[in-house]
Amino acid sequence: MGLTISVLTIGDELLNGEMADTNTAAIARLLASRGYTVHDSSSVRDVESDIVEALRFLTRQREILIVTGGLGPTADDLTSRAAATAFNRPLETNAEALAQIHRHFARLGLAMHPRNEKQAHLPRGVDILPNANGTAPGFHLDDNGCKVFFLPGVPAEMTAMLEQSVLPALAKHLGQGEFLHERVLKVFGLSEPKTEGRLDAIKLPEGVQVAFGVDFPFVHVKLRVSGAAADTRLEQAERLARQTLGDFVFATGTDSLAATVARQLTFAGQTLALAESCTGGWIAKLLTDLPGASVFLERGAVTYANSAKRDWLQVTETLLEQHGAVSGECALAMARGIRRNADTDLGLAVTGIAGPDGGTPAKPVGTVFIALTSETTERVHGYRFPGNRDSVRLLTACMALDWLRRHLAAAER
Amino acid sequence: MGLTISVLTIGDELLNGEMADTNTAAIARLLASRGYTVHDSSSVRDVESDIVEALRFLTRQREILIVTGGLGPTADDLTSRAAATAFNRPLETNAEALAQIHRHFARLGLAMHPRNEKQAHLPRGVDILPNANGTAPGFHLDDNGCKVFFLPGVPAEMTAMLEQSVLPALAKHLGQGEFLHERVLKVFGLSEPKTEGRLDAIKLPEGVQVAFGVDFPFVHVKLRVSGAAADTRLEQAERLARQTLGDFVFATGTDSLAATVARQLTFAGQTLALAESCTGGWIAKLLTDLPGASVFLERGAVTYANSAKRDWLQVTETLLEQHGAVSGECALAMARGIRRNADTDLGLAVTGIAGPDGGTPAKPVGTVFIALTSETTERVHGYRFPGNRDSVRLLTACMALDWLRRHLAAAER
Repeated sequence: MGLTISVLTIGDELLNGEMADTNTAAIARLLASRGYTVHDSSSVRDVESDIVEALRFLTRQREILIVTGGLGPTADDLTSRAAATAFNRPLETNAEALAQIHRHFARLGLAMHPRNEKQAHLPRGVDILPNANGTAPGFHLDDNGCKVFFLPGVPAEMTAMLEQSVLPALAKHLGQGEFLHERVLKVFGLSEPKTEGRLDAIKLPEGVQVAFGVDFPFVHVKLRVSGAAADTRLEQAERLARQTLGDFVFATGTDSLAATVARQLTFAGQTLALAESCTGGWIAKLLTDLPGASVFLERGAVTYANSAKRDWLQVTETLLEQHGAVSGECALAMARGIRRNADTDLGLAVTGIAGPDGGTPAKPVGTVFIALTSETTERVHGYRFPGNRDSVRLLTACMALDWLRRHLAAAER
Repeated sequence: MGLTISVLTIGDELLNGEMADTNTAAIARLLASRGYTVHDSSSVRDVESDIVEALRFLTRQREILIVTGGLGPTADDLTSRAAATAFNRPLETNAEALAQIHRHFARLGLAMHPRNEKQAHLPRGVDILPNANGTAPGFHLDDNGCKVFFLPGVPAEMTAMLEQSVLPALAKHLGQGEFLHERVLKVFGLSEPKTEGRLDAIKLPEGVQVAFGVDFPFVHVKLRVSGAAADTRLEQAERLARQTLGDFVFATGTDSLAATVARQLTFAGQTLALAESCTGGWIAKLLTDLPGASVFLERGAVTYANSAKRDWLQVTETLLEQHGAVSGECALAMARGIRRNADTDLGLAVTGIAGPDGGTPAKPVGTVFIALTSETTERVHGYRFPGNRDSVRLLTACMALDWLRRHLAAAER
């Protein structure tokens, strides 16, 4: 089964609910960028016998083991001692490690705290991995046919040492990994099963694998390929996938839906004004997450009260009485009003019942109206979104952004 | 060594760097709250043989195994099939699971996609665990002397099922764990070392442990105690901690800063209008995350362009020319303007440079002005917040909410 790399993270805090383990993902990301795959990962507490057991088991099963955590100066840092026990090596003061710790404190203009000397007590015969950002030296040893790298748990120190010491050692030992080329297509408006159904129906180039992920309400289609002419096959795969998924694909790679819309607006030189009721400013927040929104976003109105809808959007009392604030008529009036007041190319409005209260039999929780106006177009549509308040608000914000995306894409053609 | 509980999370995305595993920490947190300790955890990819190997190994080593992920409808969801292989059970359509999936779609008013039927293909002889929030039923089986619970990987579904089905099963099987009583105080405006320094200087009741967590920009102080009279000692500890931390504590338990402010506004019967520049609607979004905001939030203005500041907030051209849009003068004019226009008790305004562009030597990125006005008070202050665009925007939104909290708390006295 080829080369197997395993990650072991050590720390009580990972198993008592205090914090999620982010080191494994950081290691996996760096390794994946160099073409290496992490086979599996595990976490154990700061209990010496548990660490010993995990080290013995994993070194016998895997070829490369990357261990993080438990190298600090305090009494609950037990990794070095456990490594000495697991591999039957004496624990002794490592002169190179001690010198490195002294240098670290000297750089900071401080005297070394005696407690830090413990960080130089290491199993005999290890190679020291320098740590430019902290006191804990890392180390490397070979045992049970496995290369083991011990790194501190502090993320910044860990990733720097991984790049500086571990990746070069892997490249030397294993040769460069076979780069895995990946392209991610982001989909809105098709469920995961429907997305998969469409891709099942087409034939992708030889060796291209497809995986799916959900980042609610988005579906991610991951096309992956390695080996010869990977780029060409990936291009072909993307073209075919885009053909079958059509304009449900809103981005490739890491772009968000809001970033796509922001780029379209900027590119088209179009200005936008927003009138938000149930989303309470979330659409504006998403569009301003990235820099440069001042180019296209003239203003946004969060009009929770009817008085605000009257003042700022000129939604009439009659309209509110006849149709209610949650209606297609009101959404359209809001979009017209905000566009006229802000004097922008586009006016976008949303109004709805996010819940949990406020629903009626005719307009249950999840009822939402979206309206978009420009000089030449007016569009309004009602939805019934599922789920709780958070889900209704998120779906409303994303659907509104998707309206902008489709409108601007149509205008580009 | 007593009862051993292990967590196994399944998914390519956990081992290729796409996402960190947060389910393990969520499970550990819930279990810890009931007095159970997680012994260790591991993650494997969506590879059937790897899942089979992990299930066999872990069920032989541990007494309880909680598995998440791989129960979805797509081809890379392999957990049920792997469980059937690992425990030598045939895979068959489970009528109860199928009925549950049908009911889920019916509730949403949708027809079931044929592909979702796969989610009812389960190993023979399992107990179904209901899923109120999604399509994937969970299941439970006993094998190799281990109780195994299979839950979906979607965090909200997983935690709900853990609470509804797994915890009661554990309590029945193992007896109640020794409840760990915990109280969390949430702090804004003091760094973690400073918070810890204040608590180090006081003497807490016997047996009360303190832990710290950071949920940027907030610090969480966790007071924990078990055994006799735990409640009384926890009360005492909270009182002492509140004494030393003063009004930097904004909430106990799970309340957010925005929820605290929303409750204060509702309780005081005060109305609010917002004028946001650099936060782009984020403050309004936070205040409307929870239901009931219509009671106090009259309106919010996202005034990115100067024209919007003039129209809606009556910020004059002269003021903008003399002081610039990022100035104490402008913030105050915005707060006055929005309060006057909306006719509310309070007017809150923020303006600043979130970056990465737009900074000058006199007003670098991170320069932010906040202003709050009421009938009897006017306050404006400038900040220089550290970090990137996201951090500056988040700190601005939280500081503005904290101004409201402190203003309303003072009014309550």
